[in-house]
Amino acid sequence: MRPSGRQPDEMRSIHFTRRYTKHAEGSVLVESGDTKVLCTASVEERLPGWLRGKGQGWVTAEYGMLPRSTGSRMGREAARGKQGGRTMEIQRLIGRSLRAAVDLKALGEHSIMIDCDVIQADGGTRTASITGGYVALVDAIRHLIAEKKISKDPMRTAIASVSVGIFEGTPVLDLDYDEDCNAETDMNVVMENSGNFIEVQGTAEGHPYSMSELQAMLALAEKGIGELLAHQRAVLDETL
Amino acid sequence: MRPSGRQPDEMRSIHFTRRYTKHAEGSVLVESGDTKVLCTASVEERLPGWLRGKGQGWVTAEYGMLPRSTGSRMGREAARGKQGGRTMEIQRLIGRSLRAAVDLKALGEHSIMIDCDVIQADGGTRTASITGGYVALVDAIRHLIAEKKISKDPMRTAIASVSVGIFEGTPVLDLDYDEDCNAETDMNVVMENSGNFIEVQGTAEGHPYSMSELQAMLALAEKGIGELLAHQRAVLDETL
Amino acid sequence: MRPSGRQPDEMRSIHFTRRYTKHAEGSVLVESGDTKVLCTASVEERLPGWLRGKGQGWVTAEYGMLPRSTGSRMGREAARGKQGGRTMEIQRLIGRSLRAAVDLKALGEHSIMIDCDVIQADGGTRTASITGGYVALVDAIRHLIAEKKISKDPMRTAIASVSVGIFEGTPVLDLDYDEDCNAETDMNVVMENSGNFIEVQGTAEGHPYSMSELQAMLALAEKGIGELLAHQRAVLDETL
Amino acid sequence: MRPSGRQPDEMRSIHFTRRYTKHAEGSVLVESGDTKVLCTASVEERLPGWLRGKGQGWVTAEYGMLPRSTGSRMGREAARGKQGGRTMEIQRLIGRSLRAAVDLKALGEHSIMIDCDVIQADGGTRTASITGGYVALVDAIRHLIAEKKISKDPMRTAIASVSVGIFEGTPVLDLDYDEDCNAETDMNVVMENSGNFIEVQGTAEGHPYSMSELQAMLALAEKGIGELLAHQRAVLDETL
Amino acid sequence: MRPSGRQPDEMRSIHFTRRYTKHAEGSVLVESGDTKVLCTASVEERLPGWLRGKGQGWVTAEYGMLPRSTGSRMGREAARGKQGGRTMEIQRLIGRSLRAAVDLKALGEHSIMIDCDVIQADGGTRTASITGGYVALVDAIRHLIAEKKISKDPMRTAIASVSVGIFEGTPVLDLDYDEDCNAETDMNVVMENSGNFIEVQGTAEGHPYSMSELQAMLALAEKGIGELLAHQRAVLDETL
Amino acid sequence: MRPSGRQPDEMRSIHFTRRYTKHAEGSVLVESGDTKVLCTASVEERLPGWLRGKGQGWVTAEYGMLPRSTGSRMGREAARGKQGGRTMEIQRLIGRSLRAAVDLKALGEHSIMIDCDVIQADGGTRTASITGGYVALVDAIRHLIAEKKISKDPMRTAIASVSVGIFEGTPVLDLDYDEDCNAETDMNVVMENSGNFIEVQGTAEGHPYSMSELQAMLALAEKGIGELLAHQRAVLDETL
Repeated sequence: MRPSGRQPDEMRSIHFTRRYTKHAEGSVLVESGDTKVLCTASVEERLPGWLRGKGQGWVTAEYGMLPRSTGSRMGREAARGKQGGRTMEIQRLIGRSLRAAVDLKALGEHSIMIDCDVIQADGGTRTASITGGYVALVDAIRHLIAEKKISKDPMRTAIASVSVGIFEGTPVLDLDYDEDCNAETDMNVVMENSGNFIEVQGTAEGHPYSMSELQAMLALAEKGIGELLAHQRAVLDETL
Repeated sequence: MRPSGRQPDEMRSIHFTRRYTKHAEGSVLVESGDTKVLCTASVEERLPGWLRGKGQGWVTAEYGMLPRSTGSRMGREAARGKQGGRTMEIQRLIGRSLRAAVDLKALGEHSIMIDCDVIQADGGTRTASITGGYVALVDAIRHLIAEKKISKDPMRTAIASVSVGIFEGTPVLDLDYDEDCNAETDMNVVMENSGNFIEVQGTAEGHPYSMSELQAMLALAEKGIGELLAHQRAVLDETL
Repeated sequence: MRPSGRQPDEMRSIHFTRRYTKHAEGSVLVESGDTKVLCTASVEERLPGWLRGKGQGWVTAEYGMLPRSTGSRMGREAARGKQGGRTMEIQRLIGRSLRAAVDLKALGEHSIMIDCDVIQADGGTRTASITGGYVALVDAIRHLIAEKKISKDPMRTAIASVSVGIFEGTPVLDLDYDEDCNAETDMNVVMENSGNFIEVQGTAEGHPYSMSELQAMLALAEKGIGELLAHQRAVLDETL
Repeated sequence: MRPSGRQPDEMRSIHFTRRYTKHAEGSVLVESGDTKVLCTASVEERLPGWLRGKGQGWVTAEYGMLPRSTGSRMGREAARGKQGGRTMEIQRLIGRSLRAAVDLKALGEHSIMIDCDVIQADGGTRTASITGGYVALVDAIRHLIAEKKISKDPMRTAIASVSVGIFEGTPVLDLDYDEDCNAETDMNVVMENSGNFIEVQGTAEGHPYSMSELQAMLALAEKGIGELLAHQRAVLDETL
Repeated sequence: MRPSGRQPDEMRSIHFTRRYTKHAEGSVLVESGDTKVLCTASVEERLPGWLRGKGQGWVTAEYGMLPRSTGSRMGREAARGKQGGRTMEIQRLIGRSLRAAVDLKALGEHSIMIDCDVIQADGGTRTASITGGYVALVDAIRHLIAEKKISKDPMRTAIASVSVGIFEGTPVLDLDYDEDCNAETDMNVVMENSGNFIEVQGTAEGHPYSMSELQAMLALAEKGIGELLAHQRAVLDETL
Repeated sequence: MRPSGRQPDEMRSIHFTRRYTKHAEGSVLVESGDTKVLCTASVEERLPGWLRGKGQGWVTAEYGMLPRSTGSRMGREAARGKQGGRTMEIQRLIGRSLRAAVDLKALGEHSIMIDCDVIQADGGTRTASITGGYVALVDAIRHLIAEKKISKDPMRTAIASVSVGIFEGTPVLDLDYDEDCNAETDMNVVMENSGNFIEVQGTAEGHPYSMSELQAMLALAEKGIGELLAHQRAVLDETL
């Protein structure tokens, strides 16, 4: 039995609020159960130095947790004077995943920064950041098209992400914090809507996992990501 | 005429959402017009080193802006590796103001950290942080009393804060971003409910201000803070 | 009775030594009682990036305390790897105040950095920095005029600054360290020679202050700043 | 055809030099083709604060590249004042993987730091660090046993790591730099000698990969890791 | 001919002002020609961690230049967030030299920090710091004896320092800035009053120097340091 | 008797391995007894800003110790976020010494970075870095000539470096770690092949040293450096 009472293959409820803030070109509050992440997409004309003049754009991401998004307060990274290793690892994953969804040549010389800030954490903040960041990214791209700054849609595919794991011996989908702390294995999966993988990161926390466990987890991930992609499509079909 | 169409002595609408997040002992989303700040109050047993064993508590604050809370994206302070001067100045003001509302002896050896994170900025983020931070602080104190960690309410007074300024020659109350950018003078006032001052900070942006302008601004501030204190009382009277 | 035996409205002796060091375009040792601050004004051709090509100049300030300017040694900020919040708050105040005295358009594309380094601290280092920084700034401007780099004097007004407070229930002028530690209220005031305010920053340390106390303090500040402005005029009339 | 002329399932030659340096409790130069990494294991009595008094030990890792281990010189992280995101991500992976091989309770209150410093880079530095770090770790554990600081061998399993990828449409084993730059997919796999997974990290660089490609890559990884584990056993059986 | 008109073996005038500031246990302004350095000696009870409980004391130094102590303004190290290599090299030299003058066992568990801050630079700031730092150190030691915190004078010897060099082919004593910039060789020498060496640091700036040039420079240094030691004795014999 | 059994004027064995790594233009492992330092010379077209357009080149150095190059592990400077004072002092010495060997005008607008990374430390790492760095520098210069990027050899002289000291009252050559820890005086000497000095840095660790001791140490240094220069010539005469 999962602590939340969910079935092993049952996702938490997911909810997207587009235009959550007014300044950003894309701005989405994604809520996955009690996990709440604000994803904004900011269009900037300035490219990183090593990309200038190459006729292509860039998509990257930064991630942060508000100090009291967690059960006990975490020190503010700005006050400590550096981003921790976990933060860096997560924001590199988010950026890499979202870049895989975009044809950077077709984006032209624009750069899009995805900021993912965790308002409330209950497990799965990095996968929610990718899933919500995708929606913010699409809104920013639509803004660029509406402004006639690019003529052709550079989105190559839709992507979403979910975590899976082995909890008390059973493969489960979409771990919350209580499960995440006690899972024997924790795997984050990013897929596109063809069903192919963008990223698979699976870590044995308690004991190593077998090939059949790996396959069971990937099957759950495929199911969950399918649901997330459907939610994304639905919310992006709404007119704002 | 003010850009917003408000009267010179008219506040923006103010709204407090208590228990906005689930982990913090106090957690308030304060919305003042389009300015939105999440204020959390975290109780910690650990005191700063220089206060240990002195039989008193501590209240302090940290402030941050989400990178895209503003019209154009600001670099993330955690990524730049330090908090800027404006951030430091603001969080010192918030901490100093809230400390003035508390009897630190009566608080006992507990420390309360107020985190003010700006979700969306439209002028007045520091005054909203103080006004909302007060509500979060009271909730954290009530938590300490409910947990029987302190026996007596250490709150000495209620406080709230508002900005006033001279805009196109006229003293105005509660400046939004459009006014703030163009104001000749900008003053932040923190008052307690007796009508006395906790902090007055007035800066001539365009031209120096006279004593009568100062007095006109302070009178507006007193009116506005009176309204804020009434809103705070009302929201704190609600049972959660 | 004040610890120093001064009357409530009595300033400490003030003394300016122009050309205190030989390299800077303006260089003034300001002594206010036992507080000693070296203020240098350095002319640089290089403007901050965001100001280039706008046909105007810039005035800014940095502040530091020598490690043993104080009763017990403070850690050296260069060794700790960052400037503290108090330092940042003070240097922002100094820069803002001195900028208010200058017509930046008339200054042309020159930048002037005011460095205020505290040799010995006995209260009032920030106000002494502003008062002395003004003299150093005027000397640097005169240097620019003598060098024919600007043709017209860009100084709009003279400014000076003093602290006032409530000490043992009485409003007093120009607090020294003993008073500053024990004051119920501490207010720093910057005025120009018309008697208008550039900056007012008043903080209730012990208990909130009333409107009449505020007015009493501002009246004392006006008296003290008038004396400081006269001293500045006298010392600037001397030929070096 | 692979640039190196190797078969798709052919590893580069691997070589371990134990006691490569004289000070560390474990010290191994691992050479995988032209990739050379020095792995040292340092035993320290000091545990991280949050682990003290819990009756268990700790294993962690740090990773660095010598500035000219690469084709063009990389800035020295010590001179830039921080470790980059890639460095942090890699050293977290190394530490997590090696911890999975150790029973931390049985290790007792000792901490072991694995330093992996890349002398020469030609692809696969993180997997070589794990594979070589395991050998250094075993030598440090043997040192602890020889010194009678622990009585029972805390190693739970042997681990090794290899990269696999899709290069020009073909799944290949043990990518060198030329392949790594051009691979469509890059996957790092850490396994234990039972054939179970410690960590799987697969990233689509060029295009998303299918489940069958994933399985082909994992099969190659299993083959390669089997060979690495045999090499480790052989070198650890030698008497020094 | 030297730019200053001095003879090759002629020192600049040297002047010490003891009790230059009021807070430090030792506080000396040392002026060597136009070079002015404020040296303070601060007694602290707190020892560095690695020295605690060893029954001995510590002497160390920090060095800084005020931003406009030099002909063109140098960036403030506190604002840049780190001390430069030159600063570190100099403060290590000062600390090492002054420690050589003290019997650290006899000092007992006290630590003395020598802060050397350059008010005005005209060459020879590091040697002036050592020579002036010695006087400040003796005053701090006398303070400890007067306070009966130590019973026996821990000073082992007197030390002083001077620079020598080869300027236009001629060995010269006590280089000022004009000479320092153009010297072919620059050597800093620290000696004790027995005539033995504490430190010799000679750098060929323009061309390598021969043994006979080295000996000529050391002879000049011995003469100059003899004069400095006499000045130190005289000023320390004065009653304050 | 020296701990190593060497005669007072006896060097440790010295060994150079050229082309130790494959990427750098010059790459030398220098072994002096148990001290092992990897010196790489990297040619870069980018000059420091203040040198651009001056028609000359630049040579500089960086130094680092691998964390476990020493008997007990040292914290990694990249992880601590700054280079320590000893590191800075050493890398400045290496850069200054190697620059003295090169005609920077003849080098043209190329910059050469010498990285000295200590693999294993047993005393004398800075002198080994200079001696080995020279060999790497010559190889990089030869590379530039072979690539026809410069037409004329810019090397002015050969340089090498050794440490000398007073150990148990006797002047000794080429101190290893055991001697270095206990030496009364430690002196690092850099000479060119004419027998002139590039740098002399002598520090009294235990007691001040006399002129005759200084001369005895310099005579030993001259002998040792003569041997090192012969070794350098021999290894550079080999065809690779």
